[in-house]
Amino acid sequence: MTPLDIGQFNLVSNVISFTIATFGAATVFFWLSRQHVAPVYRMALLLSGLVTFIALYHYFRIYESWHAAYQITAQGGLEATGVPFNDAYRYVDWLLTVPLLLIELILVMRLSSSENRKLMITLPAAAALMIVLGYPGEVATNDTTRWVFWGLSMIPFLYIVWTLFAGLSEAIKRQPERARGMVSAARWVTIIVWCWYPVVYLFPIFGLSGADAEVGLQIGYSAADILAKAGFGLLIARIAFIKSEDEREWEQPAPTGQGAQPRA
Amino acid sequence: MTPLDIGQFNLVSNVISFTIATFGAATVFFWLSRQHVAPVYRMALLLSGLVTFIALYHYFRIYESWHAAYQITAQGGLEATGVPFNDAYRYVDWLLTVPLLLIELILVMRLSSSENRKLMITLPAAAALMIVLGYPGEVATNDTTRWVFWGLSMIPFLYIVWTLFAGLSEAIKRQPERARGMVSAARWVTIIVWCWYPVVYLFPIFGLSGADAEVGLQIGYSAADILAKAGFGLLIARIAFIKSEDEREWEQPAPTGQGAQPRA
Repeated sequence: MTPLDIGQFNLVSNVISFTIATFGAATVFFWLSRQHVAPVYRMALLLSGLVTFIALYHYFRIYESWHAAYQITAQGGLEATGVPFNDAYRYVDWLLTVPLLLIELILVMRLSSSENRKLMITLPAAAALMIVLGYPGEVATNDTTRWVFWGLSMIPFLYIVWTLFAGLSEAIKRQPERARGMVSAARWVTIIVWCWYPVVYLFPIFGLSGADAEVGLQIGYSAADILAKAGFGLLIARIAFIKSEDEREWEQPAPTGQGAQPRA
Repeated sequence: MTPLDIGQFNLVSNVISFTIATFGAATVFFWLSRQHVAPVYRMALLLSGLVTFIALYHYFRIYESWHAAYQITAQGGLEATGVPFNDAYRYVDWLLTVPLLLIELILVMRLSSSENRKLMITLPAAAALMIVLGYPGEVATNDTTRWVFWGLSMIPFLYIVWTLFAGLSEAIKRQPERARGMVSAARWVTIIVWCWYPVVYLFPIFGLSGADAEVGLQIGYSAADILAKAGFGLLIARIAFIKSEDEREWEQPAPTGQGAQPRA
């Protein structure tokens, strides 16, 4: 393990804890908000909550693993325990959550069913491939391997970005006017935040090494996860709220007795 | 315990953790999805979630037991602690979940009540018998005992497969057209994934021994569990969604007052 001082150790620990709190709150918010939107958008909120729920679990494990990797000495210093910090939790998390995030976006757009069916398969599959190809480079100890798998992982990544841009532009034009800006924003958040991951991935190559690289990597990934999962989910929820307001009729299931009253 | 290196230990640990995350997410998904399907299919989704929930609990125990069985030495190596890894959790899990999985399948098919009653007893009973007969062979240290109980366990197994094939073919033909392919797929997933278990069971006999056999066994069972429980549950949910759409009237609880209006 990278030698850290106690301040660096605590900083990362606090960032992980912040992330746990955020994901716990986001999960409950998304699930309980389902009843405030039209039935057709509830699945998108269910999935938003599922993504933050899965991330919540993994951040608990990451927290545990971080604390198992270091211990405080009798002199108040910090030393590695010999137990390696398990970075694989992040990849396992992404493998499950990244395909779900794309499904959320597709669901909230309410595409035609043929578009839907195609994208529901190709986008999540590309996302899973992107994560799987990234992992060997993440655990590699030499820069060449890291670059090679970075490059391989970028192929499905660029396919996803291209699909979100080119493939969904038409669909965005068909969104109701009040929601159009938000849907476009959700797409942009996906693209911009996701671009941050391949950058963090390359930290060790960009001369960032040792304690700084480790701290930067942990904070960088945590911040990106918060934006890409909880932040993105909030945008999806906002879109669902707006679109539900425009389709108000779902709320009152036909005022049943009313019709008869005039006769009284 | 089989001696493992730290990479093998971590690989199995990460696969178990991935399985935990999958089952946690699947459980919530099945339970919260109940409101998206017609009332008649809600029990099938409740049971799908129950299966993954039971498996979630057992995989937490398996994770714990795996980590109790090994420890990292001061030199960064891995050594067995002497606490045996408890493989019985898997069998306890199957004893509860496998009969439930068959009930799920029967429920989502909506058979006639006489078919229902018969299958609801014979299939789960055969499944429980299959698990009970398998266990003595799993913990056996000699190949003969392993083969004998493998063979005994295959009798109820083949009865289940035969019933799913022969007994349910008629019922599948009666499914609504859009759901027929999915129901047939669910039956096939059951048969194909389940065939994987007796194969994994025989790994130790097929010369796969020591670390590779242990790692293969753990990953093999975890993958099969994910497919047979969460994957199968997703198919069941999809069938319930499709069949509910075809029986749309359940959603709007019949606008009762409307009928009176023309008279006003």
